[in-house]
Amino acid sequence: MTQVLIAGVFGKMGQQVAAMMTAAKDLTIVGGLAPEATAKRAFPVFTSLEEINVQADVWVDFTLPQAAATNAEYALTHGMNAVIGTSGLSEQTQARLGEVAKAAGARLLIVPNFAISAVLMMQFAAKAAKYFPDAEIVEAHHSDKLDAPSGTAKATAKVIAAARTEKPLAPHQDAPARGEWLDDVPVHALRLPGYVAQEEVLFGAAGESLTIKQVSFDRSSFMAGVALAVRQVHTLPVGLTVGLDALL
Amino acid sequence: MTQVLIAGVFGKMGQQVAAMMTAAKDLTIVGGLAPEATAKRAFPVFTSLEEINVQADVWVDFTLPQAAATNAEYALTHGMNAVIGTSGLSEQTQARLGEVAKAAGARLLIVPNFAISAVLMMQFAAKAAKYFPDAEIVEAHHSDKLDAPSGTAKATAKVIAAARTEKPLAPHQDAPARGEWLDDVPVHALRLPGYVAQEEVLFGAAGESLTIKQVSFDRSSFMAGVALAVRQVHTLPVGLTVGLDALL
Amino acid sequence: MTQVLIAGVFGKMGQQVAAMMTAAKDLTIVGGLAPEATAKRAFPVFTSLEEINVQADVWVDFTLPQAAATNAEYALTHGMNAVIGTSGLSEQTQARLGEVAKAAGARLLIVPNFAISAVLMMQFAAKAAKYFPDAEIVEAHHSDKLDAPSGTAKATAKVIAAARTEKPLAPHQDAPARGEWLDDVPVHALRLPGYVAQEEVLFGAAGESLTIKQVSFDRSSFMAGVALAVRQVHTLPVGLTVGLDALL
Amino acid sequence: MTQVLIAGVFGKMGQQVAAMMTAAKDLTIVGGLAPEATAKRAFPVFTSLEEINVQADVWVDFTLPQAAATNAEYALTHGMNAVIGTSGLSEQTQARLGEVAKAAGARLLIVPNFAISAVLMMQFAAKAAKYFPDAEIVEAHHSDKLDAPSGTAKATAKVIAAARTEKPLAPHQDAPARGEWLDDVPVHALRLPGYVAQEEVLFGAAGESLTIKQVSFDRSSFMAGVALAVRQVHTLPVGLTVGLDALL
Repeated sequence: MTQVLIAGVFGKMGQQVAAMMTAAKDLTIVGGLAPEATAKRAFPVFTSLEEINVQADVWVDFTLPQAAATNAEYALTHGMNAVIGTSGLSEQTQARLGEVAKAAGARLLIVPNFAISAVLMMQFAAKAAKYFPDAEIVEAHHSDKLDAPSGTAKATAKVIAAARTEKPLAPHQDAPARGEWLDDVPVHALRLPGYVAQEEVLFGAAGESLTIKQVSFDRSSFMAGVALAVRQVHTLPVGLTVGLDALL
Repeated sequence: MTQVLIAGVFGKMGQQVAAMMTAAKDLTIVGGLAPEATAKRAFPVFTSLEEINVQADVWVDFTLPQAAATNAEYALTHGMNAVIGTSGLSEQTQARLGEVAKAAGARLLIVPNFAISAVLMMQFAAKAAKYFPDAEIVEAHHSDKLDAPSGTAKATAKVIAAARTEKPLAPHQDAPARGEWLDDVPVHALRLPGYVAQEEVLFGAAGESLTIKQVSFDRSSFMAGVALAVRQVHTLPVGLTVGLDALL
Repeated sequence: MTQVLIAGVFGKMGQQVAAMMTAAKDLTIVGGLAPEATAKRAFPVFTSLEEINVQADVWVDFTLPQAAATNAEYALTHGMNAVIGTSGLSEQTQARLGEVAKAAGARLLIVPNFAISAVLMMQFAAKAAKYFPDAEIVEAHHSDKLDAPSGTAKATAKVIAAARTEKPLAPHQDAPARGEWLDDVPVHALRLPGYVAQEEVLFGAAGESLTIKQVSFDRSSFMAGVALAVRQVHTLPVGLTVGLDALL
Repeated sequence: MTQVLIAGVFGKMGQQVAAMMTAAKDLTIVGGLAPEATAKRAFPVFTSLEEINVQADVWVDFTLPQAAATNAEYALTHGMNAVIGTSGLSEQTQARLGEVAKAAGARLLIVPNFAISAVLMMQFAAKAAKYFPDAEIVEAHHSDKLDAPSGTAKATAKVIAAARTEKPLAPHQDAPARGEWLDDVPVHALRLPGYVAQEEVLFGAAGESLTIKQVSFDRSSFMAGVALAVRQVHTLPVGLTVGLDALL
């Protein structure tokens, strides 16, 4: 039985994480943290670090960058491993917290993307790129997303470029329809109502093609990744780990 | 039984057209035309217009622009309808030949693309655009194709723009990953080994999407369109018609 | 400005329809009908037909079969056209209500599926089947859906079979992996978590293929179809019409 | 520089392998084997094992089962590693040849499928199945293929079943549209003109999906796998290895 403390327990992610853990047989929520205890829960909800009077195995954090840094430091120095889903921590803060973890003999896992399908897609793309240097990425999101391409698409292009062992056959082309070239991987971004978030990596070689596609349409897609992180964080080396793929 | 004369009968398309017509029960090849009669056929092969001593219902032309124009004039003024698959005839030439057809009471059908799947895709895209103004096009071709986007993609964008009754919801974005905007339709072109020629039109609206995809991987995909054109050209109005969709 | 009365205004569909119409500039809700007026609205909510003291152009019904029949009769004989989204009306009831409409000089539109993408998919499939007799259907739904194949898939198979002008090339096969053969159209049903509702029709011929795919992931996808029905029902012939495709 | 001897050098695969190796800078063909030397080649073509008077690093075999067994025995006992692409060797023959290889201190690699995209697809499917127990397979082939499902689809289902750590959420259903259930993986087979050979594995979980798709449309798709096998066979353990994935 893994005992968990959830920081940001009344936020959108925090509420869903709490529901998931309540349903899971091998996870117990021993407490929550929130600026205000706006609702009753089956576990104690603390409104400051000072109030906390329980012990957990894992601290799970879905708050804001500054709070998350303070929280992580507290958790790591109070005998807990920490899983941070809060986004926006600077690289310096991440490195500093890694040192705190190391000194405390604890694990700190910072996760930019909890969707297991997205993490697997990137792993598979890295492996395929070793044999198929020619690759393109097509991502599609709802029409309100204003940046393009998506962070996942950029990260995937980087991973493909790093894994290639040969140069692609298809020549570089500057035509606007050929998309944005990131590390010699053309990236295409679609923005359409009726789509939520998806990404497709297309590999081609003489006479064959291989495509890996990932679709997220709901925050529920992150729960399996959160559960995995909480269950397995203790298997990681002491100190900082970034990304769920260390566990996949 | 429709009687056909094939100009360019030893070219790549001509040979395949001849094989298809030989197998079809309702089509007879009464003659071929080629600069040199390099091989024996079950039908007479003439090496010049002067030699021709047979009468056909339909003249089919897969030659070169200049020859095709001369051939079409001959056919239209000798009691035949003409189906021209030769590409590259200028708009003036097309218009002039249309006048010749009208004067002769004959039909001239010029076909840029015989793939029925491509023609249907464009028809469907036009209809869908009436209800779904938000659309994007993703086409993929082999990595040797240097122009981007493809002619079919450009034509499809034009057809979508003409059919729209509302403006798209997704705002215009200049980011390179958003592709080339043709008439407010973002067009994305992929060039990969392992692909031949395909095009996908994606429509999106609140909570739903509709996608139409067409793949050609072989010259054989044109045969059904050629057969349709030859069988149905007599149902068209006298004069010039451009494109197979008049028959679909 | 079209004036509308919504029956079942507190149901899941009714609420969404009311929100959509409130936002639409050319539609006004003049009243709602519900067994109990459980909440305040900007329009009067009546709890029985007797209470209704307003006049509308169109009656929209998302209730239960028995109520819908009574409601439709009321609407048609009180100077309104009726758009019925309630499912489960027997063919006899539909025919009887059609007679009522005819006698009253009104239009009755019964709509099994308001998703425009699904209706267009079926129209496109019917057209494509004229040229491509070889077709298969692959539908995918969430893993809670216990019937297979879906009603839309069955309806699409019927439409394809009716439109074919030739027999398919692919021979009939009884292997279980070849799916369920409906009118010589193999239908395959997938049931997976992470999917909501989608359907794909695949056509193939020598050297080419054409695919039409429709995805619904949200009740919001029906709103455009409801709006279209309400706006255009007056253009239909007097009497009964079934299906949105009469308007597309 | 790896020196290669090709058995079955005038067969369809043999000819393509020879062309590929002629173009590769690090591979040299030192000889070919064929029942009759029907054409001149830049390397000697032997018509029997007795005639062979050259030494190679790797024996490549695309012949018939009986010949392949005799050939492999010859190669393994004459100082060569062997890559066997010939299909149809019984499990007993494979085991016996493995013993021959072991005794000779040589490597024997038997490869059922040289398409790297297919081998990667199976590897990725195995990994994904650890996290996503719900999976279905959809394969599509040309309409002349009479068996269904394909061997690759069956092998993929087996690999998924072996890798699962949990039972799928979707209940077992016997409806014909739900396909053939192999190890609790529903498999769907499409047979359509216009398709060559493709396979798609679909994984689904709450709010997300992951799809891996592989398309082969040409024998050229096997060449990269043959080259990989020839270049890397020496890195395998002495004795028998089955399948290209040992090298990926």
